Amino acid sequence: MSRAPEKMEKLVSLCKRRGIIFQSSEIYGGLSSCWDYGPLGIEMKRNLKEAWWQKVVRERKDIVGLDASIFMHSKVWEASGHVESFSDPMVDCRACRRRFRADDVEGDRCPICGGELTDTRQFNLMFKTFMGPVEEDSAVVYLRPETAQGIFVNFVNVQQSMRMKLPFGIAQIGKAFRNEITPGNFIFRTREFEQMEIEYFVVPGTDEEWHRRWIEERLQWYIDLGLREDRLRLRPHGENELAHYAKSCVDIEYLFPFGWAELEGIANRTDYDLRRHSEYSGRRLDYYEESSKRIVPYVIEPSGGVDRALLAFLVDAYDEEEVRGEVRVVLRLHPKLAPITVGVFPLVRRDGMPEKALEIEEILRPHFNVFYDEKDSIGRRYRRMDEVGTPYGVTVDSQTMQDDTVTVRDRDSMEQERVHIRELVEYIRDQISSWRRPEHITEEVWV
Amino acid sequence: MSRAPEKMEKLVSLCKRRGIIFQSSEIYGGLSSCWDYGPLGIEMKRNLKEAWWQKVVRERKDIVGLDASIFMHSKVWEASGHVESFSDPMVDCRACRRRFRADDVEGDRCPICGGELTDTRQFNLMFKTFMGPVEEDSAVVYLRPETAQGIFVNFVNVQQSMRMKLPFGIAQIGKAFRNEITPGNFIFRTREFEQMEIEYFVVPGTDEEWHRRWIEERLQWYIDLGLREDRLRLRPHGENELAHYAKSCVDIEYLFPFGWAELEGIANRTDYDLRRHSEYSGRRLDYYEESSKRIVPYVIEPSGGVDRALLAFLVDAYDEEEVRGEVRVVLRLHPKLAPITVGVFPLVRRDGMPEKALEIEEILRPHFNVFYDEKDSIGRRYRRMDEVGTPYGVTVDSQTMQDDTVTVRDRDSMEQERVHIRELVEYIRDQISSWRRPEHITEEVWV
Repeated sequence: MSRAPEKMEKLVSLCKRRGIIFQSSEIYGGLSSCWDYGPLGIEMKRNLKEAWWQKVVRERKDIVGLDASIFMHSKVWEASGHVESFSDPMVDCRACRRRFRADDVEGDRCPICGGELTDTRQFNLMFKTFMGPVEEDSAVVYLRPETAQGIFVNFVNVQQSMRMKLPFGIAQIGKAFRNEITPGNFIFRTREFEQMEIEYFVVPGTDEEWHRRWIEERLQWYIDLGLREDRLRLRPHGENELAHYAKSCVDIEYLFPFGWAELEGIANRTDYDLRRHSEYSGRRLDYYEESSKRIVPYVIEPSGGVDRALLAFLVDAYDEEEVRGEVRVVLRLHPKLAPITVGVFPLVRRDGMPEKALEIEEILRPHFNVFYDEKDSIGRRYRRMDEVGTPYGVTVDSQTMQDDTVTVRDRDSMEQERVHIRELVEYIRDQISSWRRPEHITEEVWV
Repeated sequence: MSRAPEKMEKLVSLCKRRGIIFQSSEIYGGLSSCWDYGPLGIEMKRNLKEAWWQKVVRERKDIVGLDASIFMHSKVWEASGHVESFSDPMVDCRACRRRFRADDVEGDRCPICGGELTDTRQFNLMFKTFMGPVEEDSAVVYLRPETAQGIFVNFVNVQQSMRMKLPFGIAQIGKAFRNEITPGNFIFRTREFEQMEIEYFVVPGTDEEWHRRWIEERLQWYIDLGLREDRLRLRPHGENELAHYAKSCVDIEYLFPFGWAELEGIANRTDYDLRRHSEYSGRRLDYYEESSKRIVPYVIEPSGGVDRALLAFLVDAYDEEEVRGEVRVVLRLHPKLAPITVGVFPLVRRDGMPEKALEIEEILRPHFNVFYDEKDSIGRRYRRMDEVGTPYGVTVDSQTMQDDTVTVRDRDSMEQERVHIRELVEYIRDQISSWRRPEHITEEVWV
């Protein structure tokens, strides 16, 4: 119903009001581009990360996990090329002192005050700090700008301790930090963000085939969790936008209210990283084939952003529809992602209904994320659950007190079904696994 | 069997060899006090954090989660008192330039070279970096030294969006950073570490009672997950060691091979933090009672370290025993913490046994973390699982091919039971929930 820019504002406001996402340090005026996940946001983020870990680690035999520290030896970033190449071209205005990304400026004048601009200079995007008591060069450590290097430097440790055979992958979820000049679009581009990355090591020569397979696999993951296919596309990088380590890269893009933008990049990093670390550390980072040949594997890297994936799922799920003359706001999230799975309500606050509903809450609690609510009319309670995407609402009414059946309301269709309490867990489980995004969703023009 | 210092070395070596914990940036000589969790370590850490989240968030109605960013506005750390007070007294040697914690040095001479020492100076433990393109004072951000402040500054956001009523808590798991002068003891004291913290807000006057309840509750959590009671103790802080914000604090300590040390501190932070943030931000951070009275809640803070808890569980689980003339190394981890829950093995690599075992692996995979192994003798495979704490081993033998039963070996007793494949999931679930630390564990002298 609502159009793109306005919808983004509504989403940001909903996120704050309902405990999904708050601005960091808000009471101090906020910290630019940093965000805190509230009680419902963290549950949704946990669900998202868990869905990824299940899919790429637990359900597979060829991928294992890793959790490397954020601080790493500064040599790591020399070897990786980040000290030298991980920078943006910047220009400063000599008059008002503002700084801009060179490619955001057209012409040679400041877009704000019209002042004269400096020549383009390189600005490294890594955050730097000092470890130990003395602030000197030898004590410099960087906050990792990508989690990937933690995997490369542990390649031999992981391969040998887990006796992995090519092809195999190492997966990791963790924070990374980039001192972006122009962060923005809510949680889309932030200076502190969370990555979910796989480095998938393959025999050279098989890398292009594996690259194709991973692009397909990762695209399907977003679709399976409910993103609309017509808002997803693949975009291969052009020659001049490839990162310094990549032979080729394909982005999975989503049509956000602010336009098409990257959700995940799947890059063919070749043997660049293992060779560079081998060179800089003097250690062999290779793989001993059964045919007695040592090879340096190629690597395919599906690298996604947790926060921007979460934003895509929120944006995609956001819907408004008119119900009996009122606007109903509903997040049509996949039940696996929804922060609350089941709301439990007594129809009224008397006749033993609250007690019965609390009993049901305890029956459901070990299986689902449940939320009990007895305040206001049942209609208002349903609406509160709709706007945070709770897929199922269980209501105790007078019939419950007679025959132990409850109504289960479906968030998307708003239809209700009567289910016996003893079948409730199974019923909800079945609903979750058979969930499909409803067809009748309002069609919108986005950009 | 092995004594304390030697045991710690063995544990570190086991952790590396079996993919539990690696030194960070090891190929570059390592980064002091930073560690990476390997494939088995991250699974164990995930289990530990999940057990905490289940206990303190999901099973309770009075606590909700939060995930605040690591970067926060620098005003936060002025208000919290960390800029002023979060420092260690240090002395430098004028001869060899080494730096020491003042309280580690006895006398007025350098303990290494005997040189003259400077006067005591304060050294702030927060890591500092710059956000945005310019390295100037206004751009200073600190890496949070505790996750707690992310909760305090969001107090009103969370209370209002979730309509929480006192007493209630906000729980958070996340990284924190302290530029410790003397980190050490493996993952016990590190400069980058993970906290699991609850801030539990209560009506003033009820805080001492809640403090007692939380001490009991948290101690019990460690015991329930398998830590030996005789290696746990409570230690109240003395007046002179209390943090600047605390009225009282009790540590839960564990008897590590290097002595008694803190696992978790449960502090009564009073209304210090909310009042300070209110004062510095000019915002009301209080709670509107139904009796129309505004009150600033007191807060009880159970604050545990994820990494040191993991170390305690590893140390506590580590055992050696003589079995048929050989030493068996076994981690007697609680099955809920073990990185692998079930090993699946064909007795031999023929007669259809590997195929059958792989089928069983797929049956178990949706329910447990499983690991298939067909290499080497069955005895060696059992030993490999023992030393990473896998509680159950399922073996396919010739009888399996006749009647679809398998043997399930118990890690602790090494006893085997025959179970039908169709009852396997249920059988293992029952074993997990009825697990008790075995009585016959070798008694050791620790320190």
